[in-house]
Amino acid sequence: MATITILGAGMMGTALTWPLADRGHEVRLVGTHLDDEIIRELKAGRPHPKLKLDLPAGVRPLAVGELGEAANGADVIALGVSSAGVRWAGKQIAPLLSPGKPVLMISKGLEWDGERLSVLPDVLTTELHAAGKDGIAPVAVGGPCIAGELARRVDTCIVFTGRGATELAYLTDLARGPYYRVFPSTDVLGVETCAALKNAFAMGVGFAAGLHEKRGGQPGSIAMHNHEAATFAQSIVEMQHIVSIVGGDPRSAAWLPGAGDLTVTNNGGRTGRFGRWLGLGLSLDEAIAKMEGATLECLEILDVMRRAIAKWDERAAIAKTELPFLRHLCAVARGAQVDVPFEAFFSGFAQ
Amino acid sequence: MATITILGAGMMGTALTWPLADRGHEVRLVGTHLDDEIIRELKAGRPHPKLKLDLPAGVRPLAVGELGEAANGADVIALGVSSAGVRWAGKQIAPLLSPGKPVLMISKGLEWDGERLSVLPDVLTTELHAAGKDGIAPVAVGGPCIAGELARRVDTCIVFTGRGATELAYLTDLARGPYYRVFPSTDVLGVETCAALKNAFAMGVGFAAGLHEKRGGQPGSIAMHNHEAATFAQSIVEMQHIVSIVGGDPRSAAWLPGAGDLTVTNNGGRTGRFGRWLGLGLSLDEAIAKMEGATLECLEILDVMRRAIAKWDERAAIAKTELPFLRHLCAVARGAQVDVPFEAFFSGFAQ
Repeated sequence: MATITILGAGMMGTALTWPLADRGHEVRLVGTHLDDEIIRELKAGRPHPKLKLDLPAGVRPLAVGELGEAANGADVIALGVSSAGVRWAGKQIAPLLSPGKPVLMISKGLEWDGERLSVLPDVLTTELHAAGKDGIAPVAVGGPCIAGELARRVDTCIVFTGRGATELAYLTDLARGPYYRVFPSTDVLGVETCAALKNAFAMGVGFAAGLHEKRGGQPGSIAMHNHEAATFAQSIVEMQHIVSIVGGDPRSAAWLPGAGDLTVTNNGGRTGRFGRWLGLGLSLDEAIAKMEGATLECLEILDVMRRAIAKWDERAAIAKTELPFLRHLCAVARGAQVDVPFEAFFSGFAQ
Repeated sequence: MATITILGAGMMGTALTWPLADRGHEVRLVGTHLDDEIIRELKAGRPHPKLKLDLPAGVRPLAVGELGEAANGADVIALGVSSAGVRWAGKQIAPLLSPGKPVLMISKGLEWDGERLSVLPDVLTTELHAAGKDGIAPVAVGGPCIAGELARRVDTCIVFTGRGATELAYLTDLARGPYYRVFPSTDVLGVETCAALKNAFAMGVGFAAGLHEKRGGQPGSIAMHNHEAATFAQSIVEMQHIVSIVGGDPRSAAWLPGAGDLTVTNNGGRTGRFGRWLGLGLSLDEAIAKMEGATLECLEILDVMRRAIAKWDERAAIAKTELPFLRHLCAVARGAQVDVPFEAFFSGFAQ
């Protein structure tokens, strides 16, 4: 059995303690400076304030100042921080790492540096390099997983992806269990690009529910499922396209990382609810207000993709007719009205 | 403008009259011998008993005995019959056809003759050949479309597929309109295989909702969406695999015909509700009884696929470890308990 130190005690970082503790590992859950209230509650033996559950037996909660102690003797460092926290987390864990140390990360996102998109495992590697630590091949988690379900031991199939074969095999074996089923993939670019993009597209797939209500419809079999399915299918098409552009395997968009994660985000995630408000005709600010402070990864990723597409257009790397749904979503994220450009869909698939 | 005669006045055959009439075509809707009650109501000026809507203005309802009159001068014959009715319909329309006549069909299904799977356009062609009529290249409809939504002019994106380039282009241009968006594809085998298989897989994706309720859960964000998403993703994987086996383009499983149609069937269709009853633990017979006589295409297609898989196994055309979800669905359709084989999933995608 291994000792695993998780940095980040939000929903997903904490949910990961269930499959790991159930496998018999020693798990130490370290809050970031944003998690002080969470760690205080957990140390007092009370439930996690967001998950509304007690930690699994044996999992030890620690505050950010205790990270050094928490990492002492750890076999694995896991990052449970948000995408915005990856660079910060890299700086925190760099002193704790030596070459070959297994690092697992659940953050999902993309960075745009003005020239190219980077997936977060590569952002972390760059940050570690800047801190003088090389020889780390992070393993990232993609695929459909709602934290509150994982913490209730719902059957979950996810993907671990990394460039280090040894680290990938080690972490896959260490984490997989009877309800947390880990499937390894070497397609880091494809899996991680889908993991980020699915939030953007889930916003758009959510439009149909709002548009239906806007015209007076009730939920049920007859709604705007045709509209929803068309946007879902186009999302898979565009994810395949973007994965190809960044050099990943487009097939990753057609299993757990793309289609699977988009399904779960739409059915169980907040991003779909945000899209519904936009479909109902609320302004961007009104829709944001309805979400009561929830992190909207979709707006972050759409800002990244808006800048990427502008550069791709400038370079004529893609045609202006390509990625019509994502272009519309980028516009909606800047205040445009919802008006799905169906007639531009399925280029390259229809023939 | 064209004259279009539709044989079959069920939900989908009738729903097709909306986009065609809105395009200004003359539409004649002919009931089969199963639709006598429907045609009687429509002729009396009352709403369609299943769609609960009046026909669009100008659409003329006719009884099966009036087919000859209805086809007189028609530019297009469309089949709105169920999969079981395709051979019967072929016999009815054969005398009305001449080489090159455009034939559109909305029936979805697969036939197994003991040696190979056939898609319904090919079944129809065979039937027409037996009746002495060659030179017909039927165009079939695939992709996500709930009839009750089409008849309410909900934005719909579907696929027309056929082997005759002229017929495909003609019917695509004739039918496409502001809310019925037709995307042509030459991948008849892929599109039509997905159109049939999606019913089988939608039953399985529906298990999660029932399993969640069975353990006392309420609908909401925290349910068994992780389970559902994993079965959805595996369904896309297995549809791609089967499309490859039958000689189609596996990419058809990753846009409207596969992913899109599976989404709509699960969100708005009866097949997902049937799967929910099975997930809740009802026996096959109890679940069938709950559906109150609704046609369960999933059981028909699972019977076809059970026989196909048995032959493929016998020939060692596939390994016993392949198509694990479909094998389980075939077993459930013969009375086995729901027990999704997640550990066997994603072979060939995970690496």
